[in-house]
Amino acid sequence: MTTMKRRNFLKGAGLAAAAGTVAAPAIAQSMPEIRWRLTSSFPKSLDTIFGTAQTFAKYMADATDGKFQIQVFAPGEIVGGLQAMDAVENGSVECAHTPLYYYIGREPSLGVATGLPFSLNARQAHSWWHFAGGKEIINEVLAKYKCTSLVCGNSGAQMGGFFRKEINTVDDLKGLKFRIGGLGGQVLAKLGVVPQQIAPGDVYPALERGTLDAAEFVGPYDDEKLGFLKVAKYYYAPGFWEGGAMLHLVVNKAKWDELPKHYQAIMSQASEAANNWMLAKYDAVNGQALRRMVGAGAELRTFSPAIMEASLKAANELYGELSAKNADFKKAYDSMVAYRNDVLPWWQLNEYAFDTFMIRTRGRV
Amino acid sequence: MTTMKRRNFLKGAGLAAAAGTVAAPAIAQSMPEIRWRLTSSFPKSLDTIFGTAQTFAKYMADATDGKFQIQVFAPGEIVGGLQAMDAVENGSVECAHTPLYYYIGREPSLGVATGLPFSLNARQAHSWWHFAGGKEIINEVLAKYKCTSLVCGNSGAQMGGFFRKEINTVDDLKGLKFRIGGLGGQVLAKLGVVPQQIAPGDVYPALERGTLDAAEFVGPYDDEKLGFLKVAKYYYAPGFWEGGAMLHLVVNKAKWDELPKHYQAIMSQASEAANNWMLAKYDAVNGQALRRMVGAGAELRTFSPAIMEASLKAANELYGELSAKNADFKKAYDSMVAYRNDVLPWWQLNEYAFDTFMIRTRGRV
Repeated sequence: MTTMKRRNFLKGAGLAAAAGTVAAPAIAQSMPEIRWRLTSSFPKSLDTIFGTAQTFAKYMADATDGKFQIQVFAPGEIVGGLQAMDAVENGSVECAHTPLYYYIGREPSLGVATGLPFSLNARQAHSWWHFAGGKEIINEVLAKYKCTSLVCGNSGAQMGGFFRKEINTVDDLKGLKFRIGGLGGQVLAKLGVVPQQIAPGDVYPALERGTLDAAEFVGPYDDEKLGFLKVAKYYYAPGFWEGGAMLHLVVNKAKWDELPKHYQAIMSQASEAANNWMLAKYDAVNGQALRRMVGAGAELRTFSPAIMEASLKAANELYGELSAKNADFKKAYDSMVAYRNDVLPWWQLNEYAFDTFMIRTRGRV
Repeated sequence: MTTMKRRNFLKGAGLAAAAGTVAAPAIAQSMPEIRWRLTSSFPKSLDTIFGTAQTFAKYMADATDGKFQIQVFAPGEIVGGLQAMDAVENGSVECAHTPLYYYIGREPSLGVATGLPFSLNARQAHSWWHFAGGKEIINEVLAKYKCTSLVCGNSGAQMGGFFRKEINTVDDLKGLKFRIGGLGGQVLAKLGVVPQQIAPGDVYPALERGTLDAAEFVGPYDDEKLGFLKVAKYYYAPGFWEGGAMLHLVVNKAKWDELPKHYQAIMSQASEAANNWMLAKYDAVNGQALRRMVGAGAELRTFSPAIMEASLKAANELYGELSAKNADFKKAYDSMVAYRNDVLPWWQLNEYAFDTFMIRTRGRV
């Protein structure tokens, strides 16, 4: 019995030692090793947008001394670009870098997350997200899909795309075969545009043959690489359907909840930093790309006020329809509109007045 | 001898055990405990700007599981607001949250870091900093003062301040006693303004007595609290001398170099996130504050084109003088101008066109 007791005691000591082993890693545990997979919705050729996910992954590794490794996959390597959120929902990957408006078929409110046509510019969108209800409303919707999200990137206002012919009147839009996706396509469809979904590789020959009249993509830095200029030289501004497209890091909610609190904090901060990286980089490279494109024959055009007005009217009709049908869309949309009503008079008085003067006097030193 | 040896052996074992203790914390070392002090240049009453340093400190603690603690001090608690960088240089504190233009007396180029009159808006400034030479140029200058810096906050375009009388012509500026600091004051002095440096608490009585004609501060959210409206109801826009004032976290270079690499990474990311917090918060609260101020009797005015033009001319003269005298200023200024020349034509074509339309049609849903 004594021996037994001693054995039991030793066994107990062994357990205590084991407990000690667990306790020592209580130190190590503060930086556990974690490996995640991230699927991006963007092709590698868009090095700024795809690069935002890579930058985010690098920031995570940098901040955790290499302990938190996130491997970034391009569309098609795990799932297609349009299935990124689904892959997070079903746990195939822990996270995705994607525009939430890819999923408006499932949840119209997610269009508000990325930014509706005629909604907010990049800075306003970021403010709405953090301080005016955006993240709470959208993450409540995403919870239905076992997801949560962080804002992670913005393109700024996008261009209106390449057109084979000038578009001068609202009538010129009728029957126009335009490669444009999402809600922008739905808005323009109300004005007679025939929105087309064509894989990037097929756009050039379609424009050349004339089976496509126009195609929009992102902004000068990305658009330049496509070479569409040779077959569609009218380059229109602004891309009013994406005045400041916000991208998100979509994270599986259970995986997020499992993370130590400070890893959640690191991820939130890395995502903000990657967000800035993307916008700041675009703001540094788009101007030069635009100048090169003009040198290469791009004819810059702006959509006429009448076309913009008709599109706004069509957009507002669409938002009325969606709000009537879907309570979550209405909630997100109303929140965005309330913020926009707050911010625009102030923006006009001051921020815009500064920009106006700087633009009007540019080149003077 | 044997005993001695055994003692030596034990001693060695003790060392080994000690080494083991060091080795175990090699795990723990990955998150060493660090305590820093941060002196802010901003009074606690400016809860968004002072709050940016607090937010940054919270982000640092959150990301390190409480291991990296930064205590934030208001001006006067350790040094005055204008001595923040000096305190970092001499090691009284490890870091400061400050506008670098406070130190233009020592280094004119630091004015470019915060933003010169008529330079860049907030988004452009951030892009210049990260992708067009800003941080390299400024941190090279700061190295002379044993400092380095991270961008950590932006006010957006500031307001032009409160005026007792309307300012309609350039002549109205002559002899105007205006509380305005830094390069903005130097620019306006060329047009006859008499810039005044008055402590915040003394501004109200000076405006009431008429020993001061005007005073500028930040934007509606902060300005509202001052109550200047009662004695100077004309509220002018835009504050062209601060189109997007960038704030910095200034860090003692030796202290920075001592940090583990991943703590440096965490600090860089926390600073970016705090930067966004400040700008997004201002963009969410300024609009509402402006509306309340108008309700309370503020008469909104914009500086006339002639006043803006004359001020731009004066500013460019000043930059010519400073460039001739100071090579670092010239380097930083030329870098900013090159970036501005790249970005503004693109901004005008697209970002500004989007903003213009949204402002013109605001309220329509």
